[in-house]
Amino acid sequence: MVNPPTSQYAENWRHPLSRTDWLSGTFFTDLARTLERGCFDMMFFADALAVPEDRHGEYATTLRTAGKGSIYFDPITLVSHVAGATTHLGLGATVSTTFVPPYAIARQLLSADHLSGGRVAWNIVTSTSNAEARNMGQPGIASPAARYDHADAVVETVRELWRSWRPGALVHDRVRGEFADPDRVHRIPEGLLSRGPLTLPRSPQGEPVLMQAGSSPRGRAFAARWAEIVFAISDSPEEMRAMRTELRDRARLDYGRDPDTIRVLQGIQPILGSTDAAAQATLAELQAAIDLPEALTKLARLLHADTLDPAAPAVALLDAHRGATGSTGFEDMLRAVSERRGFTVADLAREQAMNQLHPQLVGSPEAVADELEHLFRSEAADGFIVFPALYHSSFEDFVSGVVPELQRRGVFRTSYAGTTLRDQLRA
Amino acid sequence: MVNPPTSQYAENWRHPLSRTDWLSGTFFTDLARTLERGCFDMMFFADALAVPEDRHGEYATTLRTAGKGSIYFDPITLVSHVAGATTHLGLGATVSTTFVPPYAIARQLLSADHLSGGRVAWNIVTSTSNAEARNMGQPGIASPAARYDHADAVVETVRELWRSWRPGALVHDRVRGEFADPDRVHRIPEGLLSRGPLTLPRSPQGEPVLMQAGSSPRGRAFAARWAEIVFAISDSPEEMRAMRTELRDRARLDYGRDPDTIRVLQGIQPILGSTDAAAQATLAELQAAIDLPEALTKLARLLHADTLDPAAPAVALLDAHRGATGSTGFEDMLRAVSERRGFTVADLAREQAMNQLHPQLVGSPEAVADELEHLFRSEAADGFIVFPALYHSSFEDFVSGVVPELQRRGVFRTSYAGTTLRDQLRA
Repeated sequence: MVNPPTSQYAENWRHPLSRTDWLSGTFFTDLARTLERGCFDMMFFADALAVPEDRHGEYATTLRTAGKGSIYFDPITLVSHVAGATTHLGLGATVSTTFVPPYAIARQLLSADHLSGGRVAWNIVTSTSNAEARNMGQPGIASPAARYDHADAVVETVRELWRSWRPGALVHDRVRGEFADPDRVHRIPEGLLSRGPLTLPRSPQGEPVLMQAGSSPRGRAFAARWAEIVFAISDSPEEMRAMRTELRDRARLDYGRDPDTIRVLQGIQPILGSTDAAAQATLAELQAAIDLPEALTKLARLLHADTLDPAAPAVALLDAHRGATGSTGFEDMLRAVSERRGFTVADLAREQAMNQLHPQLVGSPEAVADELEHLFRSEAADGFIVFPALYHSSFEDFVSGVVPELQRRGVFRTSYAGTTLRDQLRA
Repeated sequence: MVNPPTSQYAENWRHPLSRTDWLSGTFFTDLARTLERGCFDMMFFADALAVPEDRHGEYATTLRTAGKGSIYFDPITLVSHVAGATTHLGLGATVSTTFVPPYAIARQLLSADHLSGGRVAWNIVTSTSNAEARNMGQPGIASPAARYDHADAVVETVRELWRSWRPGALVHDRVRGEFADPDRVHRIPEGLLSRGPLTLPRSPQGEPVLMQAGSSPRGRAFAARWAEIVFAISDSPEEMRAMRTELRDRARLDYGRDPDTIRVLQGIQPILGSTDAAAQATLAELQAAIDLPEALTKLARLLHADTLDPAAPAVALLDAHRGATGSTGFEDMLRAVSERRGFTVADLAREQAMNQLHPQLVGSPEAVADELEHLFRSEAADGFIVFPALYHSSFEDFVSGVVPELQRRGVFRTSYAGTTLRDQLRA
């Protein structure tokens, strides 16, 4: 999960170990090669369509402090670029369904899928802020329900376009002079948001893999209908397991899907050291680098609040600003964690700046592998999204420390199965 | 200029010398490396947003015969991908202004520009067909005047977004903790189609280069206003020179631009051989491979006609179907050439299948270099767009034969000036 120069750890960009060349292609291709060396399923690029604004519509604070979202490359360009530097790593691009015609989305993703030899996934988002809507030429953002209804139609349209060339449609018979069999290339069904066909046949993996991270009830229904990979955030193994079970049940009962075609991934932030004590020292150093007034300002911006009382209970603050982020599922998660852990506003601000509330696994490679293996074996997750604290060192440490340990235990692959992303997911 | 598997030569895909792996990334990166070896300014990707249809709205004939436009990758993905395999070659992407919000266009192009180290150009088109409009969720295509008016607003918006981070806006001071200077990051002016700012600062070349190929009067006015590179098609040196002069004059008089900031490129199709006789033999072989009934079918499709009389004058056919292609400038060019050369309908169909009416330069490398040097010295063109007959052999032959000959004469660069595309254009 990649969106430099900010990471989930807000002070990444100021840390001496983090790379400063995040506007270059090499920054991303180096990182991709590290992940491929570690047999990661995929590299995934987040996105938003505006510099985040505070409640007064100002972005000055965000930019001054490298708030998350100050810099976003277009993810389609990133996956297309990184595809050339890798051969097996999956490549996930976040693309919003809300503003761009589905034909454009379908063709960009399928093009990148061909160029990568069948390694692309689409992380489906609906966008959440008025700033994004206004950048995209609309007066304001629609309601979550309206956005998800539109997203259903967009995903259905995109999938039909991807399938508009049936298997065998591309004939390419030079002697007879038959390039394609028009009887196997179709319009898409009436009532959708395009006509088709696409100007591309199917890819080596058929079509891109669908991923989704919505955590509201509507978002989970969307995931149960469409997603092959689901991102979840939870800070307790019990809740992780409950979320995974619920999603699998809904996919089966509501949409007739085989639950084993869904991979539920839990976000984690590893903080590694050669020993557990060294890892704790690193954690303390990262925490000490957080500027509390700045973290409070960022939390106020996120919740569209003005000044915050650091000593007040976080739950009260969240309740007072319900709906401000545009993602009620995300807010519910913040509230549940704040309640369970008895956070003050200052605690919440610090945790947000540290890791956006992703569970931390702090320790030696062996200790972190223990935790991951436990979560995996207890069916809390089918896999993990590794959020780096620092680019690129957190990934390098994970690949050289934790991955070999997991491989030694036989719970993680030592080479890629097949060549496409779907090959890895089904292996 | 690249849009495989069809090239300007309609039978490319059936020729034994043409590569068949045009759905792979390697097809494009190999080609890019060949062009970079030949010190080409840029590699340029054409586009359209639908498989071309005949007057009955059918695409079967197009697909069966690999008609131009059967296959189109999204150009943004291609330039982003090829950027990683090259270091100096410019990369031109065709993107339509008609359907996608300008914020998305601006960010994709500027992202690719960063990833390539400042080598991207935007070929601005407005799309021409109802099939494209319907794929993109609209009932039909707008008039050319409405499309160009919208394109003016889109280009203005995109340029303002590219410039929303002023020079010096990115501070990146780790010690003081100042990431960006918000006073140098701006909204774009009211009345445009977005608000800004972008989530990216300026690129190594500032912003992508603007290219355009419109040949109608409205298209030429658009080019005079915006374009730094203009594509032209003409089959006589006199007309090339007249077009170049007119465009330079309009840029200066109507828009106050320095005409030397505009490069007018003429499209040519080289047919090479070790001797002039060998080149003529190759030409004859390529011509003999053209299937006349199929070429007539494609011409009928292009002009939205039914059956054609091969012996009738081409001019009468063109007059009867004026407006069918959605590009009156292109139709005017077809008509002028048909009139000057006294084409029958069969002649026009054959020429279309052979090279889309781009002037052919047939001969030994020395002879082709003579013609190019003459056109350049007579101020008919600032440069050339080389249309290959066959992928990749036509480009390989050009790079190994004509380029060294031009270099020996001192009329073509032997290495790249600087690292960005704008560096090359200004050198």
